[in-house]
Amino acid sequence: MTTATAAVEPFDAVDVIAAKRDRQRLTDAQIDWVVDAYTRGIVAEEQMSALAMAIYLNGMQPQEIARWTDAMIRTGERMDFSGIGRPTADKHSTGGVGDKITLPLAPLVAVFGVSVPQLSGRGLGHTGGTLDKLESIPGWRARLSNDEILDMLREGGPGAVICAAGSGLAPADKKLYALRDITGTVSCVPLIASSIMSKKIAEGTGALVLDVKVGSGAFMREMSMARELAETMVTLGKEAGVATRALLTDMSTPLGLTAGNALEVRESLEVLAGGGPDDVVALTLALAVEMLDAAGRPTSEDELRAALADGRAMDVWREMIRRQDGDPDAPLPVAPETEVITATEDGVLTELDALKVGVAAWRLGAGRARKEDPVQAVAGVEMHAKPGEAVVTGQPLLTLHTATPERFARAVEALEGAVAVSPAGSPEAAAAVARREAGVVLDRIV
Amino acid sequence: MTTATAAVEPFDAVDVIAAKRDRQRLTDAQIDWVVDAYTRGIVAEEQMSALAMAIYLNGMQPQEIARWTDAMIRTGERMDFSGIGRPTADKHSTGGVGDKITLPLAPLVAVFGVSVPQLSGRGLGHTGGTLDKLESIPGWRARLSNDEILDMLREGGPGAVICAAGSGLAPADKKLYALRDITGTVSCVPLIASSIMSKKIAEGTGALVLDVKVGSGAFMREMSMARELAETMVTLGKEAGVATRALLTDMSTPLGLTAGNALEVRESLEVLAGGGPDDVVALTLALAVEMLDAAGRPTSEDELRAALADGRAMDVWREMIRRQDGDPDAPLPVAPETEVITATEDGVLTELDALKVGVAAWRLGAGRARKEDPVQAVAGVEMHAKPGEAVVTGQPLLTLHTATPERFARAVEALEGAVAVSPAGSPEAAAAVARREAGVVLDRIV
Repeated sequence: MTTATAAVEPFDAVDVIAAKRDRQRLTDAQIDWVVDAYTRGIVAEEQMSALAMAIYLNGMQPQEIARWTDAMIRTGERMDFSGIGRPTADKHSTGGVGDKITLPLAPLVAVFGVSVPQLSGRGLGHTGGTLDKLESIPGWRARLSNDEILDMLREGGPGAVICAAGSGLAPADKKLYALRDITGTVSCVPLIASSIMSKKIAEGTGALVLDVKVGSGAFMREMSMARELAETMVTLGKEAGVATRALLTDMSTPLGLTAGNALEVRESLEVLAGGGPDDVVALTLALAVEMLDAAGRPTSEDELRAALADGRAMDVWREMIRRQDGDPDAPLPVAPETEVITATEDGVLTELDALKVGVAAWRLGAGRARKEDPVQAVAGVEMHAKPGEAVVTGQPLLTLHTATPERFARAVEALEGAVAVSPAGSPEAAAAVARREAGVVLDRIV
Repeated sequence: MTTATAAVEPFDAVDVIAAKRDRQRLTDAQIDWVVDAYTRGIVAEEQMSALAMAIYLNGMQPQEIARWTDAMIRTGERMDFSGIGRPTADKHSTGGVGDKITLPLAPLVAVFGVSVPQLSGRGLGHTGGTLDKLESIPGWRARLSNDEILDMLREGGPGAVICAAGSGLAPADKKLYALRDITGTVSCVPLIASSIMSKKIAEGTGALVLDVKVGSGAFMREMSMARELAETMVTLGKEAGVATRALLTDMSTPLGLTAGNALEVRESLEVLAGGGPDDVVALTLALAVEMLDAAGRPTSEDELRAALADGRAMDVWREMIRRQDGDPDAPLPVAPETEVITATEDGVLTELDALKVGVAAWRLGAGRARKEDPVQAVAGVEMHAKPGEAVVTGQPLLTLHTATPERFARAVEALEGAVAVSPAGSPEAAAAVARREAGVVLDRIV
């Protein structure tokens, strides 16, 4: 049916929806129009949500995804780091529990002459946000001007910046992401890939490494879907001229021994001081190797370990924090209330479920249910053992932290079934030990 | 993810959408909640449109459709005709071009002691609306109070009423229909069936005959989908205690010789005067037979023909019009401007496309593109031959009527390819003659 709008617009939203509904490939012109018209408010929210569900159920061809990504980029501005005189590399994680890798990773990579523009977001649901974590450092501010960002990346600056992404990048994605969140259309490869890559390409980085999480604490529970997502994003990045690669990494159990804002900063400082949990160190090094290699500055793990051990990465970190008005020497806030969960049998820890720990940390106050909710810097879950390690009856397994003790009950509820212990020597114990030894990186896609 | 809403509502809309997206059967409780919460504005338009698209693509089981229909009914009021002391029968058409059948049908059925509460709507797009047609009668008003409706149906009244459906019936459907219209989710059997049947069951009729159109001018282009729709609706009606049956009828070519408001009233008056085009008379009689039989007053076609021939149906009509402040003796408005399209060859008319004629009538001013647009009483298309009839070069085939002659050009454009003529004796001509002789009723579902 023709409407008044159709007289001035080249397409009718209903026709575009119907095409995808009927399993047709959308044309470049249809995609360009529908993304732009949605951003302008000509295509209504309820029309885009019907289209998103049709895309969810009927899919998109690679060319459609590339065009959709490009159309989203063209709704906003693009950043340009060509003037800083150094190669740039960025990392993006699809989100997990205890994922503080950005914090040690950005300064570590910067040590080797590659600038890291890490434009980040806040957490929603059970996964934490990098900005929320850094805001537990007294004084630190997330929002910088474009000039401040460029100054930090240039020769003479720390060479890395972690700050809030400006709202000018891919505004279509911002609008669409909020819509997908309430319409059951989040976990769809074409929509996830175009959402992530539109922002990352608009950001103007020269190299990009994707950390695609798989497991209970990740959006992707299955390896096949995570692999499809990783391959789709790597292709999109390369086609846009960004040196892109991806690691598929384990998110069946939390990364490291902490989930929560100040708790994760503390753990990141341990890594920057040359210590920290094995899995956090291993993933930080693996991602740094990929970033430096993709940016044309191949660097070995040994060289990277040295930069952690001798304090060069920590020096960059301290400079980064100071530049954003944070005090790197101020003590981190500590929860006034804690509750300890102990082991009830001897054996090997065979399970410590990422999603359940993430939900518990969230309920303790580390995360938010709505965008406008505040988060507690001190809240979270501290883990005292990881799957594959031996435990004895009565030893602490988890310490719950919060400023609001009335939250303990619901956090404990969330942890029901999160932990499993099997007798040493049992097949379950052997499998857990083997998984631990296999490490956090499951596959690499270039 | 839990939201503030989830604390007081038994379900989260995203979970219900995800269930249907993942091809699960919705539970009764999910359906009851989502329909009610949508009506209350708790489930947002963009959430319902994602759900509608998931239903479109993944379908619903018969029990889901029945529950959905019932949930829509429960969002509003139900009418009750039990007090009028006569059986009631209603007819619903899925919409076509030139479909004025309600006008002669309602008074004809009323002659035989069955009351006809025909709560009708307005046209949108290329199909005309019954109320728009009647409003070309000077003075006639569509909106009646419930008491007025009951008075017209009772002994002593005309026994039939055609008026606007109150907004209190199935308000969920009203909201959902407007949403489906702009989100590409109209032509879906579960949603069409529940939409129609929720209103008809809420209306409180004892018997219901569905006229399900098939062909280019109908929502259903294919017999298989029309049959599925008819069977679904007949089952829904019976389960709700309404004696329901359906006719599948041809809508590849317009019904009768007119499409347009006053033009169709004029043709209806011809039928009520014992004349009129064969197909209009045939369908009126077929539907009247079904309505009277379903209402427990079986009546033969001969008896019905007699009531048209001797003026009893016309008497009911005149009383119906007068009761709604219309003047049955006032001349109908006539278009100031006409344009004639003539045959360009001799032969048999093999095609007169319903959709194209409908669009032409609409463009001439008979229909509306938006709900709030006015319609012209005088605009429309008059046909001088029907498929299967012989035509000669130069004879008028169509007369276009409008009050705004600048509309002729786009109407003529819409008619491109609408008409086809084949040599007498050709296979196409023989097929057209055979179709004409087979009549308008294609099948019957009880």
